[in-house]
Amino acid sequence: MSEMTTEILEQNLGKMVIVRLKGGKGLRGRLKGFDQHLNLVLEETEDTTNVEDVKKLGLIIVRGDNVVLISPPPR
Amino acid sequence: MSEMTTEILEQNLGKMVIVRLKGGKGLRGRLKGFDQHLNLVLEETEDTTNVEDVKKLGLIIVRGDNVVLISPPPR
Amino acid sequence: MSEMTTEILEQNLGKMVIVRLKGGKGLRGRLKGFDQHLNLVLEETEDTTNVEDVKKLGLIIVRGDNVVLISPPPR
Amino acid sequence: MSEMTTEILEQNLGKMVIVRLKGGKGLRGRLKGFDQHLNLVLEETEDTTNVEDVKKLGLIIVRGDNVVLISPPPR
Amino acid sequence: MSEMTTEILEQNLGKMVIVRLKGGKGLRGRLKGFDQHLNLVLEETEDTTNVEDVKKLGLIIVRGDNVVLISPPPR
Amino acid sequence: MSEMTTEILEQNLGKMVIVRLKGGKGLRGRLKGFDQHLNLVLEETEDTTNVEDVKKLGLIIVRGDNVVLISPPPR
Amino acid sequence: MSEMTTEILEQNLGKMVIVRLKGGKGLRGRLKGFDQHLNLVLEETEDTTNVEDVKKLGLIIVRGDNVVLISPPPR
Repeated sequence: MSEMTTEILEQNLGKMVIVRLKGGKGLRGRLKGFDQHLNLVLEETEDTTNVEDVKKLGLIIVRGDNVVLISPPPR
Repeated sequence: MSEMTTEILEQNLGKMVIVRLKGGKGLRGRLKGFDQHLNLVLEETEDTTNVEDVKKLGLIIVRGDNVVLISPPPR
Repeated sequence: MSEMTTEILEQNLGKMVIVRLKGGKGLRGRLKGFDQHLNLVLEETEDTTNVEDVKKLGLIIVRGDNVVLISPPPR
Repeated sequence: MSEMTTEILEQNLGKMVIVRLKGGKGLRGRLKGFDQHLNLVLEETEDTTNVEDVKKLGLIIVRGDNVVLISPPPR
Repeated sequence: MSEMTTEILEQNLGKMVIVRLKGGKGLRGRLKGFDQHLNLVLEETEDTTNVEDVKKLGLIIVRGDNVVLISPPPR
Repeated sequence: MSEMTTEILEQNLGKMVIVRLKGGKGLRGRLKGFDQHLNLVLEETEDTTNVEDVKKLGLIIVRGDNVVLISPPPR
Repeated sequence: MSEMTTEILEQNLGKMVIVRLKGGKGLRGRLKGFDQHLNLVLEETEDTTNVEDVKKLGLIIVRGDNVVLISPPPR
């Protein structure tokens, strides 16, 4: 993982991020932790795959190999 | 695996967790063990993929590479 | 593989287990052997994918990367 | 690969085995060789995917990562 | 990664690039960073998968194993 | 790769082989080279996926991870 | 990668090659660079997936794990 990736993720610890997973699932949650495989710990997570039916997931661990992209909130 | 992931999983040993697998399968079970690949041992497991037809699986070993996310129960 | 996984598999050597594979295939067989990749040796195996048409497979070797979950029989 | 897997495969050298591949393809052939990745050499192989239209393949090399399961003939 | 790949990516730091992902998703964004796995940091990113409905994503981290191709802008 | 695989491939250098790829594509070509990942160099290659519409590909390099099986010509 | 693969690719530097990707995408472009993972740099690239609608891509970097086959032009 590049230093920039680490830096961006560190700057966003405690902030809401959007995560897109393989297979089309979308998540929105507060970034609590991460590692170099992009394993993520999110809290207050919502499954936003179906925008008509957002589901609360709360605290979750995401296995990094499912991650397509991570998007910090706009500043 | 980050220390935080390990810590969260350790705090949830003996507690019910929800596991989402690749391909859409959903599981709910009591976390008995895990390792750094997210191989999991669950007991009292139910296959909750089809909420109309939950199936009892009992004690299971989940191969970690199938895991998308693990969600401890809300506190 | 965690020690617990090894322990559970060892306790079930010689017993019937249920194995779910990627792609939806289901197997039921007597666990004869395993290794740390979850490569399995099963005997008296049946392909239970289609419950209306269970097929006898007898002795088989399963390549571990196909395994989703392994379920020992209820006690 | 566990010693048992190696042992079973060695005992079946020169015998007909059934091989199931990812994607549903089925093969039947005489086991001539194998390695620890489950790369296989089969001869007198038939593609048995479509039981109404079995195709002769003769001598083949199978790349191990395609293998789901290997089944020696019933004794 | 070949030196040429690194060189091309370095020359395009700060410039708009087009990224095609596995599964058909298309992105357009300003290249801020990359590493040897082709993990990318893009800003002012747009999801261009559906040209009739381009979505703003802003700053994103792309996990490299999803990347099919990266295309710098025509000169 | 087992010695036997290497031996079979070496014996077939310069001969026509049939190659089945993941996703169902079929190739027929003269084996010019190979390595331990089953990366292949074929010449006079034809894409035989659609037997009604065989396409000439000529000299090609096949990335080994796409290979399902390789079949030397019947003797 | 075998020496022969490297040699063929080196001989084709600066020449038009055809690249087939996983998922069925086809590319045609001038080979500018490559590495041992078959990561490729192509220029004057066209997406030839749909022969009725060839799209100009210009200079691109292809991540090697998407490559199925590379075909130099007929001589």
